[in-house]
Amino acid sequence: MTVLSEPLGVINVGLEGFRRELEGQGIPVVQVDWRPPAGGDRALIELLSRLERPEIDEANARAVARMTESRPVWIDVERAGKAIPGLEGRTILHAGPAIEFGRMCDPQQRAVEGAARFEGWVSGREDLERQLERGEIVLRPNHLYGSVGAMTGVLSPSMPVVVAENEPFKNRSFSPFNEGKGNVIWLGAFDESTFARLRWLRDEFGPLLRAALRRIPGGLDIFKIVSEGIQMGDEVHARSAACTLILQRLLAPLLVESGASADAVGRALRFIGGNNHFFLSLTLTACKCAAEAAHGIEGSTVVTAMTRNGVDFAIRVGGLGDRWFVAKAPRMDEAIYYSGYTVDDAAGDIGDSAIVETAGLGGMIIGAAPSIASFVGGTMAHARRAMGTLRRICVATNPRFAVGAVDFTPAPVGIDIRKVVRTGVTPFIDTGVLHKASGVGQIGTGIARAPLEVFVRALEAFASSAGR
Amino acid sequence: MTVLSEPLGVINVGLEGFRRELEGQGIPVVQVDWRPPAGGDRALIELLSRLERPEIDEANARAVARMTESRPVWIDVERAGKAIPGLEGRTILHAGPAIEFGRMCDPQQRAVEGAARFEGWVSGREDLERQLERGEIVLRPNHLYGSVGAMTGVLSPSMPVVVAENEPFKNRSFSPFNEGKGNVIWLGAFDESTFARLRWLRDEFGPLLRAALRRIPGGLDIFKIVSEGIQMGDEVHARSAACTLILQRLLAPLLVESGASADAVGRALRFIGGNNHFFLSLTLTACKCAAEAAHGIEGSTVVTAMTRNGVDFAIRVGGLGDRWFVAKAPRMDEAIYYSGYTVDDAAGDIGDSAIVETAGLGGMIIGAAPSIASFVGGTMAHARRAMGTLRRICVATNPRFAVGAVDFTPAPVGIDIRKVVRTGVTPFIDTGVLHKASGVGQIGTGIARAPLEVFVRALEAFASSAGR
Repeated sequence: MTVLSEPLGVINVGLEGFRRELEGQGIPVVQVDWRPPAGGDRALIELLSRLERPEIDEANARAVARMTESRPVWIDVERAGKAIPGLEGRTILHAGPAIEFGRMCDPQQRAVEGAARFEGWVSGREDLERQLERGEIVLRPNHLYGSVGAMTGVLSPSMPVVVAENEPFKNRSFSPFNEGKGNVIWLGAFDESTFARLRWLRDEFGPLLRAALRRIPGGLDIFKIVSEGIQMGDEVHARSAACTLILQRLLAPLLVESGASADAVGRALRFIGGNNHFFLSLTLTACKCAAEAAHGIEGSTVVTAMTRNGVDFAIRVGGLGDRWFVAKAPRMDEAIYYSGYTVDDAAGDIGDSAIVETAGLGGMIIGAAPSIASFVGGTMAHARRAMGTLRRICVATNPRFAVGAVDFTPAPVGIDIRKVVRTGVTPFIDTGVLHKASGVGQIGTGIARAPLEVFVRALEAFASSAGR
Repeated sequence: MTVLSEPLGVINVGLEGFRRELEGQGIPVVQVDWRPPAGGDRALIELLSRLERPEIDEANARAVARMTESRPVWIDVERAGKAIPGLEGRTILHAGPAIEFGRMCDPQQRAVEGAARFEGWVSGREDLERQLERGEIVLRPNHLYGSVGAMTGVLSPSMPVVVAENEPFKNRSFSPFNEGKGNVIWLGAFDESTFARLRWLRDEFGPLLRAALRRIPGGLDIFKIVSEGIQMGDEVHARSAACTLILQRLLAPLLVESGASADAVGRALRFIGGNNHFFLSLTLTACKCAAEAAHGIEGSTVVTAMTRNGVDFAIRVGGLGDRWFVAKAPRMDEAIYYSGYTVDDAAGDIGDSAIVETAGLGGMIIGAAPSIASFVGGTMAHARRAMGTLRRICVATNPRFAVGAVDFTPAPVGIDIRKVVRTGVTPFIDTGVLHKASGVGQIGTGIARAPLEVFVRALEAFASSAGR
């Protein structure tokens, strides 16, 4: 008997072709998924090897500990202009990195116009453009104000916002209330019904919710609800149905006992109960609180923000101060489109909501939402593999957000730009898709893959700032 | 080269030992789980082969179609004595097959005493026993009245019940409202707080809920909520948290707008919101509606009820009229006990709630509730295998109740006594565990395996009634 006449077992490293060939001959193969680091790019490999330093690992561990130790609490409901420090005059906030009105995608332009009309600042598009040109109306990214908004993310001073405070670190964040379906600012559409809803949110719903919230001593622990919702089919980005139900159970008796009229309470309950995304605003503020707490740690290569405006995609890194690294926003190729629409009708990836994945939720825990998992291949085995792949680009896992449906696998958390560049794996973001031109709002749901380019640029900047 | 020097692949049928031996030598084995039918019992094998008849298969298909086409609707809230046809005088209903007071397990005895006290019929245990002996108070199984109650299942005429109607078949069923935790009749405990709660259920909560329900045209489709809840971590027997949340979202505005005082509405919302099992009563009525619709089809070997009283376990079969097949209730060996308790402290398996598994939910869809799935081995792979095993004893699957967390595997439905006897696999039931003596109520949660004996007896009865 020679070695070749004995039963053969093979470990194959790298190229899949060898495995398929051997398996075709009935030979058992253990496949090791290996690729050369950084796609074989010599300059990047050299740079990565210089950044294999324990002090970076330690800084990252500190950063992620601050993320996972965060305890964001919903403490108030207030008009944006009053709640958000520095939001003054005719300023309109928007999702994504800084961008001029002319470069904005159509739905975000429409949202800005809707907000400016709602504020009573402009009579129409021309008036808006004139005032923007003169600097009488100013556009600013949400992130610069500690604010985060889903999709267009447009927020103007008289709209009420969720105010969250990170209990251990005291940083605050803000997000507009989710308006639901129809012609709504967050999806880049408006008509008279939009303004009526926004007025109601400002004048009746906001104050009523505030009164109810004040009856919860110490406010409402957002991640507590998130961790429950994760066991109930929510990955808390594309799906927040369970979290919204849990929130409503909590708020309903408080609203009833607030002293407001039955009509007003009924309207509030129907509004919350009629919008499965209602909780998303709370998730966004909580994730922003957590990500912000991890920012500013010297030597950290952990991503502390990812955001998009439909045109550009940007990230910020914990140890690189206020610099944003920007590339083109991804096309929405991996999405399920509503009947009659295709990717050619879609705006680019949009929204501050990628803060969810930044904080280790959403796409990071795709197995939590079997209905959403179909976007990454359909089965729970795919979802589990996806989480395993994402684990490779993250610093740690968060047992608080363990996913029951995949045997309580904990959430990967803390995207390390070094790991992203080394593996070539970028995070994906569960997200909605907006029409690029027609003002019809949402036309699909899917995933966006963060462009590798922003991580490479950030890594290069980190390497040069780290000297050597 | 001889055959033995070539790579070996083995298909092993039956005994697992051979597989382990071969796998230990690195030889790939495909295992076929085969056992001799009916555990090799010749008389049963002969009997089974006689019952391999297409007309039985057809009768079973018809029975299961009536189960899956059922559409139980919550239509009313009413006192049991008024809602349940034939429930007259001093009658107390209980879970499980018929049983005398003296043979009842301790928690069910306590529940009967609590109900009799609540009705004002008795001054204490002695008085109760005297009246039972004289036939002044009568004990009857819920199932004989179209009623089903969880755990002790005790129901007396002035308690309000859920009234459900099976829209296509018009049969009705009933269940007491779930009282929640503490000293409660359904868990076999009572004190003054029990009576206060029961009075409140009867005088305030019941009428308020009735008024809210009347504002839903056509009533509330129970299985619609169940199918949503299944995607949110409920297997709807041991866990009904999501269904309860969905129900509360629906009821909250209706309660608010009912014209009742804010205090009364607040109390109702807190009661529903404070009890994750609240929805269970609705599930029970819906499953009873569906199982009852499948009963009475000539030639059918499908189980149309499984029920237990802590002492006896009983089933009824679609083609065998009103006969019940009874065996000893299983010991609660496969359970997780609260601190300080063991199986030796436990009453036997108890409750009409096995109607849930009868209708293809609960244990049949164990993969829906990862937290409960730990009782069948811990991982989702185990849960998936358990569902596959249960599929082998069922007539069909129900795509309406497909489980997202196991790749939308549909629920096995319609237990065929022939398949149970052939495979030796009996259904398992997700259930709570009651203390056998102390009146402390629930002491654990686990699964109970239906005793094979009842299926064998039913099969023998079926064979002799089928003649030949």
